[in-house]
This record gives sequence, structure tokens and C-alpha cells, in this order.
Amino acid sequence: MRNPFRRDGRIIQSLLDTDFYKFTMGQFIFRYYRGVNVTFRLINRSGVPLARMINEKELRAELDHVRTLRFTNSELHYLRGTNEYGERMFSEDYLEFLKNMELPEYKLERVGDTYELEFNSPWETVTYWEIYALAIIKQLYREAQLRQMSLLEQDAVYATGITRLLNKIKILRQYPGLTFSDFGTRRRFSFAWQDYVVETTARELPKQFRGTSNVYLAMKHGLLPMGTNAHEVPMVAAALAFTANDEIIARGGAGLFDTDVLVGAQNEVLDRWYELYGEGLSIALTDTFGSDFFFRTAPEYMARYWKGTRQDSGDPIKYGLKALDWYKEYGVDTREKLIVFSDQLNVELMVRLYHIFINRINTTYGWGTDLTDDLGFSDPFSIVVKVAEVNGRSAVKLSDNLAKAMSDPAEIERYKAAAGYTSTLAVECKS
Amino acid sequence: MRNPFRRDGRIIQSLLDTDFYKFTMGQFIFRYYRGVNVTFRLINRSGVPLARMINEKELRAELDHVRTLRFTNSELHYLRGTNEYGERMFSEDYLEFLKNMELPEYKLERVGDTYELEFNSPWETVTYWEIYALAIIKQLYREAQLRQMSLLEQDAVYATGITRLLNKIKILRQYPGLTFSDFGTRRRFSFAWQDYVVETTARELPKQFRGTSNVYLAMKHGLLPMGTNAHEVPMVAAALAFTANDEIIARGGAGLFDTDVLVGAQNEVLDRWYELYGEGLSIALTDTFGSDFFFRTAPEYMARYWKGTRQDSGDPIKYGLKALDWYKEYGVDTREKLIVFSDQLNVELMVRLYHIFINRINTTYGWGTDLTDDLGFSDPFSIVVKVAEVNGRSAVKLSDNLAKAMSDPAEIERYKAAAGYTSTLAVECKS
Repeated sequence: MRNPFRRDGRIIQSLLDTDFYKFTMGQFIFRYYRGVNVTFRLINRSGVPLARMINEKELRAELDHVRTLRFTNSELHYLRGTNEYGERMFSEDYLEFLKNMELPEYKLERVGDTYELEFNSPWETVTYWEIYALAIIKQLYREAQLRQMSLLEQDAVYATGITRLLNKIKILRQYPGLTFSDFGTRRRFSFAWQDYVVETTARELPKQFRGTSNVYLAMKHGLLPMGTNAHEVPMVAAALAFTANDEIIARGGAGLFDTDVLVGAQNEVLDRWYELYGEGLSIALTDTFGSDFFFRTAPEYMARYWKGTRQDSGDPIKYGLKALDWYKEYGVDTREKLIVFSDQLNVELMVRLYHIFINRINTTYGWGTDLTDDLGFSDPFSIVVKVAEVNGRSAVKLSDNLAKAMSDPAEIERYKAAAGYTSTLAVECKS
Repeated sequence: MRNPFRRDGRIIQSLLDTDFYKFTMGQFIFRYYRGVNVTFRLINRSGVPLARMINEKELRAELDHVRTLRFTNSELHYLRGTNEYGERMFSEDYLEFLKNMELPEYKLERVGDTYELEFNSPWETVTYWEIYALAIIKQLYREAQLRQMSLLEQDAVYATGITRLLNKIKILRQYPGLTFSDFGTRRRFSFAWQDYVVETTARELPKQFRGTSNVYLAMKHGLLPMGTNAHEVPMVAAALAFTANDEIIARGGAGLFDTDVLVGAQNEVLDRWYELYGEGLSIALTDTFGSDFFFRTAPEYMARYWKGTRQDSGDPIKYGLKALDWYKEYGVDTREKLIVFSDQLNVELMVRLYHIFINRINTTYGWGTDLTDDLGFSDPFSIVVKVAEVNGRSAVKLSDNLAKAMSDPAEIERYKAAAGYTSTLAVECKS
């Protein structure tokens, strides 16, 4: 039997095989932040022995291949034709930029049992590397694990994935009001598997499955491409703002308090985002510097006019309650607002959150790893590709799990202080 | 995703897609019993609503297609080259006969929710219908069940099959002395599935998997084709003997006692079998008229020179103990003898029997339905195609489960009496 999930050719075969928000953010960067030098870096959170499993030559071949890819005319037509969030959301100059874009070089080095991988170039081109690199590393790793198995054991991996998917769908079918999307591109088992999961889920639960973050799969299966923005935008904006403020102070100017710098950077991003995309993409990711900071400092019009917020770290129930309080503070009817949960979801958690918040606020779910990599591997596998430096300055993300904040320690402390977190707050981390 | 188990074309695509023993018996019939008129009939033991699930036109198309098939030169070469049971076991005149053979017509009629299906012609050609007809009906039925499922549920059926197969193989690997064969052609889920199971099992357990009864798959995967003979041979021989004896008596002759007729018919078959195939295929199927009758009446040289016996009904442990007693009676070293268990086996039962009889007598296992149709369907599905009439006379099989004996009731009673079963014995049936 020929395994229908077997790979033909390279892992990334189209530049659309990435998350939709890379393009919404990509245009945003292209419009407002062109030329900022940004470094993305691989962070191997769970210390997976990447280099023992993944052959360096193979990894380079996959990364090199992505650099040879270009957007085809049809792919650009698809982006141009995207109208679900507003007419002509992508401008011709941005599409022309994409047409000519070549991904920048990468820096790869084996260090012990893992790899150091870094991408450095102007933000408007380097940003795209994140998803391709993550998907490549994850898939090469899983393929290496498969190669250690017999053919039957390999078939049984897919069999496990299929029976688990069926069980999930059977459960979700019992909650017709619960809607969700695929957010699992970066952590998928493989492209073929995500393709299967997305096609199958869309067919089985057409009214509950809202779409996929993967643009290629959205195009292939006629689904809604899903996504708005990510941490990298406020992270870069904040780093730029701190640099500018520090320079003012260094030149003898008064400068602003750090808190005002951070609030200003965050609001600048939110304002420009709404200016560019309007209500269509008005879902705010609140946890870059902690959601407490966001809810305390975000302008009132955000609570009024934005469609909702996205929860991506910390305790999701506490988060939801805080969001409700935030809206109530301004007398906003929360039943017209939305929370997009997207952190470590599984069916049980989605159903739980759905029932907790039903009739209080709308919820929907961006389902990731548990949707696209649930085939029986129980190893912890947590890698990310994150903004590390902005024009040479460390970038910082605090998130709602402060214990996991990653950056230069001094810089983290500065952001924490600016965002108003005391050290006692800082230990609130996921159990 | 394209289902790799999906059918291309008709179910039976080669006349070798049948059990090996159809050819060993086929040559035997061709040599000794040509021209005997035999009727094979479908018996739907479990009352499955065949006609509600299987479209009559589709069934006819499959059956008609088998009648268009001929043995190819390569297939005849394969049979000619079979030397595992003795050199040139198939004679040129038999192979020539196969080359020109066309399967006889069938009689199909829908009656209520099921079908009546009958094949009537000289034994030497009608015998082949059994396996093709059973495999066709089973597969069409399973395909009808699959069509009532969503595509994901269909995928999950195969996924269940794969994970179960892996679990079985993991268990069997712990008992390296336990050997077995695939006997599941007639009751397989589908051709593609049996193909997968056989290829996979052969690769995973190369030293324990002895071969397959399916000649096409044995050829395809370079495995040992397995099989010797079946109930139809003594059944037809006995019916012929009773007819001849009745005629002698009708013409005023003395005739023989029924017991002597039955013993004579059974021994005639055994003698001729050994004459044709020698030691290579000397495995006796003992339960046609009950194994008690066999062990009581079989000639001593069978215990001495035949390799062993095959158990196909009744309690397998009791059977094994009876076989041990039988050999001991003649002072035969049972550790040089073999029992082939082939009735309703599963892994647990095989392991149990293996441990019970280890160091007492060799055992091996002809694994059927549980190997080739274990994909999560729990419906009882028991259909057989059996010899019903021989030159117009009812044929009888008693087996070691007398409650299940099938034939004309008067004829059954006659055979039971002839074989020495009292009515108290007759109720010994499987719990």
C-alpha cells in the first residue's frame, strides 16, 4: 500500500502555505515599518534534540528551497480577491512587493544536540520566515521519528490520527453553536496531514468549522482564510519606541516614562491597524505585554468598536472574566463582542470555555497543535521562531505567563516595570 | 486524500484470487471424480439482509465478470512451478484443463431480504465458485456499509483495522514459536485489505507467518501458498457411496451397513489423497462426519504417516486432547505430529492453544476472519457456499458441532447413525 500521506518533493511548496496573518501583518509592516532591521530566532523551549534527529543537509535543502519559491500569478490573484474582511484589503503596491520578494538568507548552526537558526533582514521580508521554518523543522522531526518505526507502525500513526479526529468531531457535533478554526500550520505533523484534517473537518462540520489560518489550504478547499495579527507587531513597535526614547534622553531630552512609551507603542499599533483594516480585522491580541496591562491602558474606543480580543496565554477562564469586566467598565454589551481563544486548546477545553461564556460573550476557537499534530506522539515539542532583536535592541514579549517571558533579563524587567507588574505578579504562571 | 484501499475495477481480478486448496482438491476431483454433478448453494447462516444491502445488478456484474476470467500463462506457470509440497504436484493435463476452464452459470434469485444463489455443474468446474462467490458477497456487503458512512468514518474503519493489526502483531511477536497462516480469503473485508494484511504480516513477522491460502497473494508477495483439502471431498464421496449402496439394495443386492459405507467413503478419499500428493499435503480434515467418528475409524497408517490433522469446528482443546489420545493408541510420537487449528481463531485463542499443546504436539494456526475482517464491524456475518447435492442426492456435513449440521433432516439422521452419534451426543454444541 502506498501511504497517502507520504511526501512528494519539498515540505513547503507554495509561499501561501503559511498563516494568513503573515499577509495582514506583512502589508501593515510594508505600509508603516519598512526598513526596520529585525532578527527572528529559533527558540527550542522544550530542548528537543533537533540536531540528533534532523540531518543538517536535509534541513538546509528545505530552507534553501523556500528561498527559490515565488508567488505565482494565481496566488497573487487569490490574495487580491480576498474580500471577506473588506474589499481590496491588499493594495497593489503590497502585492507587487510580494511578487518580487525573495526570502532573505538564514544563519544555521549546529550547537550540541540542537540548532541555532536566525533570520536577519528588513522586517517586511524576514517576517515570512517564521511559519515556513517552524513547519519545516516540525515535519522533519516527525519524519525522523517515523523512520525509526516499521511500516506498520507508521501506518498506525496515521490510523491513530484518524480515529482521534473522528472522536473529536463526534464530540464537537454535539455543540452546534461552538465554532472553531484551524490555527495549526506551524505545529502541524505534516503538510499532507493538515491538508487532510482541514478538508475532513470542513466537510464533517461545515457550520462549525469557520476556516483555516493556512492560506494555501483555504484556497485549495474554498475556505475562509483566518487570522489578524501576532505578537511581533507590538514587540517591534515597543522596541523602536524605547530606542527612540532612549536616544532622546541620551541627547539630553526629557523623554517619556517607560509606561507611557509602552502604552504609546501599543496604541500606535492598534490605531494604525484599525486605520488599515477597519472593523474587518479588529481582533486585538492582548497579551504581548500582559493582558492586565492591555485592559488597563487600551483606549475606550477599542472596547466599543473593535470586534473582540484574542487570548493566547495564561488562564483562559480568568482571561475571559477580565475581558467581561473591561467591557462592562465602558457599558459595552458583551454579547456583541468576541473572544478568540487560541492557546493550547483541545476539545475538552473548548467545550468547557464555550459553556462558561455562552450567553455572556461570543467565543470562537483557534485550534492548533491538538488539531494538526495529534497522532499519538506524546513528546513535548515546543519550538518557536520569535522576534529577538529590532535594530540591534532586544525585543520583549511578556505574555500572560510571565514566568515564560523571553529576552534579555534586564530588558524584561524594564518592560515588566513599565507594564506595571510587580515581582509578586510575575510568578503567576500556568500550573 | 485518496483512500489507498479503494477498489479499482471488479472484486475478483484473477482466478488465482482463491484458496490454494481449491487447486489441490481441483486436481483430485479432476483425477478421480470427473463428471459428478454437484450443486453448491449459498447458506446465509446469520440471516444477514444481503438483498437490502447489495444491489442485484451489481452482484450479477461481479459474478458475470468472474466467468469472463481465464488463467493467464503466468498464473499457470506459477501453479506448474509450485514445488513446496512435492515436485510437479500439478499435472499437465490438469493445468491444460484449467487453461480452458470457464466457470459454469449461476442461479441467483432475490427472496425477501436475502439472495438464493446456486451453482450446478460437473464438480470439477463448479467447485471453484465457492471462494469467488463468498469474497464477492462479503466485499459488496462491507462496501454497502461503508457507503452509509461519512468519508472520515470510512477512513476510521481502516484506521481501526490498522491499529488492531499492529496490536495483534505486537502480541504475537512475544511468542516466536507460534506460527500461523492467513486463511481469510473467503471472509475478507476486501481484496485490498487482505493484500495489505498479508504483505504487512509477512514483513513484520517473517518467521512466524508461514504463508497465505490465497494463491494470488502468495504469488504477489513470494509467500508459501497454504492449504490441503476441505469438507466437500468426503461429503461428495459419501453421497456417491450411499447412492451406489442404495442402488445395490434397490436392485436386490445385499449392500453394506451405512457405517461401512461412510467409513469406506472417508477412507477412499484419504487413500487417494495420499496416493496423489504423498506426505506433502497429508493433513487430514477430520470433522466432516465428526472427529469422534474419524478418530475411531481412520486406519492406523494415517496416525503413523500423515503429518497431522486440521481442526475446524467444536471445542479446540477437547479436539487436541482427542488427537493426542488417537496418536498414543498407536504408540506414535506426537511431538512429530501437527494440528492445524482453523476455526474462529483470534490472538488470545491462538496463544492459549499454543501454550496448552506446546511440548505435546506441534500446532499451527489458519487464521481467518479475525485476521482479514477485523475493522470494527461487530455484526454477525456468517455465510457459506456449501455442497448441497450430489447427483441429485443431499450431501451432509456433521462437523464437531452437531447442532449446526446442515442438510435434509432424514439424511442427517442417517449419517449420524452411521457415524455412531446418539441423540445425546448430538447436542454437544459450542457454548
